[in-house]
Amino acid sequence: MKSFVYYTPTEVVFGPEGEEQVGALVCKHGGSRVLVHFGGQSAVRSGLMEKVCKQLEAVGLKVWMLGGVVPNPRLSMVREGIELVRREGIDFLLAVGGGSVIDSCKAIAYGVPYEGDVWDFFAGKAQVEKALPVGVVLTLPASGSEMSDSCVITREENQDKRGYSTPFGRCRFAVMNPERSFTLPAYQTAAGVTDIMMHTLERYFSREDDMDLTDGIAEALLRSMMKNGLLALEHPQDYRARAQIMWGGSLSHNGLTECGLQRDWSCHKMEHELSGLFDVTHGAGLAAIWPSWARYVYKDHLSRFAQFAVNGMWVEAAASDLEAVALKGIEALEAFFRKMGMPVCMTELLGRKLTDSEIKELAQRCSRDGSITIGSLTVLHREDMENIYAAANR
Amino acid sequence: MKSFVYYTPTEVVFGPEGEEQVGALVCKHGGSRVLVHFGGQSAVRSGLMEKVCKQLEAVGLKVWMLGGVVPNPRLSMVREGIELVRREGIDFLLAVGGGSVIDSCKAIAYGVPYEGDVWDFFAGKAQVEKALPVGVVLTLPASGSEMSDSCVITREENQDKRGYSTPFGRCRFAVMNPERSFTLPAYQTAAGVTDIMMHTLERYFSREDDMDLTDGIAEALLRSMMKNGLLALEHPQDYRARAQIMWGGSLSHNGLTECGLQRDWSCHKMEHELSGLFDVTHGAGLAAIWPSWARYVYKDHLSRFAQFAVNGMWVEAAASDLEAVALKGIEALEAFFRKMGMPVCMTELLGRKLTDSEIKELAQRCSRDGSITIGSLTVLHREDMENIYAAANR
Repeated sequence: MKSFVYYTPTEVVFGPEGEEQVGALVCKHGGSRVLVHFGGQSAVRSGLMEKVCKQLEAVGLKVWMLGGVVPNPRLSMVREGIELVRREGIDFLLAVGGGSVIDSCKAIAYGVPYEGDVWDFFAGKAQVEKALPVGVVLTLPASGSEMSDSCVITREENQDKRGYSTPFGRCRFAVMNPERSFTLPAYQTAAGVTDIMMHTLERYFSREDDMDLTDGIAEALLRSMMKNGLLALEHPQDYRARAQIMWGGSLSHNGLTECGLQRDWSCHKMEHELSGLFDVTHGAGLAAIWPSWARYVYKDHLSRFAQFAVNGMWVEAAASDLEAVALKGIEALEAFFRKMGMPVCMTELLGRKLTDSEIKELAQRCSRDGSITIGSLTVLHREDMENIYAAANR
Repeated sequence: MKSFVYYTPTEVVFGPEGEEQVGALVCKHGGSRVLVHFGGQSAVRSGLMEKVCKQLEAVGLKVWMLGGVVPNPRLSMVREGIELVRREGIDFLLAVGGGSVIDSCKAIAYGVPYEGDVWDFFAGKAQVEKALPVGVVLTLPASGSEMSDSCVITREENQDKRGYSTPFGRCRFAVMNPERSFTLPAYQTAAGVTDIMMHTLERYFSREDDMDLTDGIAEALLRSMMKNGLLALEHPQDYRARAQIMWGGSLSHNGLTECGLQRDWSCHKMEHELSGLFDVTHGAGLAAIWPSWARYVYKDHLSRFAQFAVNGMWVEAAASDLEAVALKGIEALEAFFRKMGMPVCMTELLGRKLTDSEIKELAQRCSRDGSITIGSLTVLHREDMENIYAAANR
């Protein structure tokens, strides 16, 4: 069992009433001049943006707006935000949206007090030592960024998509109203549920596997997401289902499912290259990689995959054949992804197969020209990455 | 489903190495003049106290010591602490021990900046508006106070035992080394596991029961505590088992198992009168009350008790007879308490039966002379409390 630090200082205000408290929360957490950062027009059309801004102004806060964050959020927007915040003396960042908006906010928060280039943090050249405070009004459950310490930004020049984690990445508060996810397109709902489950699975498949309390929590989370994912697709306005998914998104990535375990993270890293190069939806990219990753590594970890199958995927235990049970678990999750309309191979993700040279390029980038490995359950070298991309290339 | 606030800002440093960081943690969280508060001699004998004090002095902190906290911690000790802290200008409180020491620390933290009498908070006459920061080096997993917002103090004059919850009750950090619980007597280990399970159950048995993610987490927690409770009794130095219990203690009471639910809390309130009057171990008192409470209320909540039985207690589902399944769940937990050596009735708890007048007094006190009810699953009036105490009076 690994020793661990668990630190989740984000004040979560969960339920429809939370939106009435945004102004008070910004004040409580020290803001006076607030940048409201958002994505497209959906938060404007739904009236959420107006509601939030009224709240902020009602308590005497000064407000600036910066919209236009796109999925796989861009470094150029982060740089624009940093400049605006510095110019206007803004002291609090409020993300209204999902993971892309939150991550763009976090990166701005890191960049403002830093003298160098904000990309330094993502390139591994510097560590954040201070940051502006960030709050969130969440509309899209998926990334878990509202409670996590992580942030993922894409540098457009060469489609570099890089993640960076720091305790400074924890948001001060997160207002979560499940009703805000009622209008999500089915594909986004399904991709969100996939991302949430993958945040749990990337930790669950661990070499250190003797923390049964963490396992039990992770397995409960997986079962809940599968049940409620299908319910939300069938009944988009089912508050109960949307609430489990929204709360599951936070718990899957705030550290709770990692306590005592060694994270793996292979699929996320291989997916980052896919969404960096092809700008696909992150959750969909994960669904298209995971089954091939799982089949590539499971034979070395049969008992873990069998536990996953029985406790997470409702597979009947048959102790006599651990391998068959393990395989059934992989098949069950793959079938669930399909049922939600997620791709489970490259053709379904991209509409075509990868070329051989694309496979080589993906593995080349993911392994930083062969200089690093990924994963910890099974350590993957460049050739393993090539094999997994190739296996998914159906 | 209830809306909720989830706010657990405590920085948990879990594992043996954490003890090396106590000095740095106090500095990080703003302390310079530190009161080390503790109970009896066990923390001194084990060398923990010396280790902690060396740590604190090594980083230049000034240290005062105040020992002698007893189980069911006393108001007189809190008052002594408040006076010492004010006199010496102490700015940080470090609890080294279990729930009693932590709660004594919290009460001191509330009392120091308050002009009135600290008991006002527990008597419902005032609300905490500021408090000194508190850190914890945990030695006894049970109360969950290291991550909870609650605090329970006993006023000696009339054995009043009262709880008080406030966001100011969240500790800044908690160092948790499961090895520190290796030497706990079996009775304390069992009472701790009981308390932990009861913190989960007091929330699980809720009228609002449509948050399956919270249910799944609670059920995983219950199963883990039952498995690891027995393991720790059999092998007191089983790090893995001790670690699940210690972490389970925090998660059971930090709010995670309450998200979306309506807490009940009946058994805790009835037990507080028992340990207030007879100074019994809190966990043991809970075990002696719960089976009688459960049998008193279960018929009105059959599906919830049946879910508890199947998902929490490994009872085989038999949908044809919900009541039989529900009863088997109650019997299973009662049997588990017995197996751990816990009392499940008054004779086993006190060595004798309660007198009729004692039963009346307990219900009288618990209902504040009949002026309040307790519980939310089934609302209990004074006569219900009498009936439950009487049912436990075997």
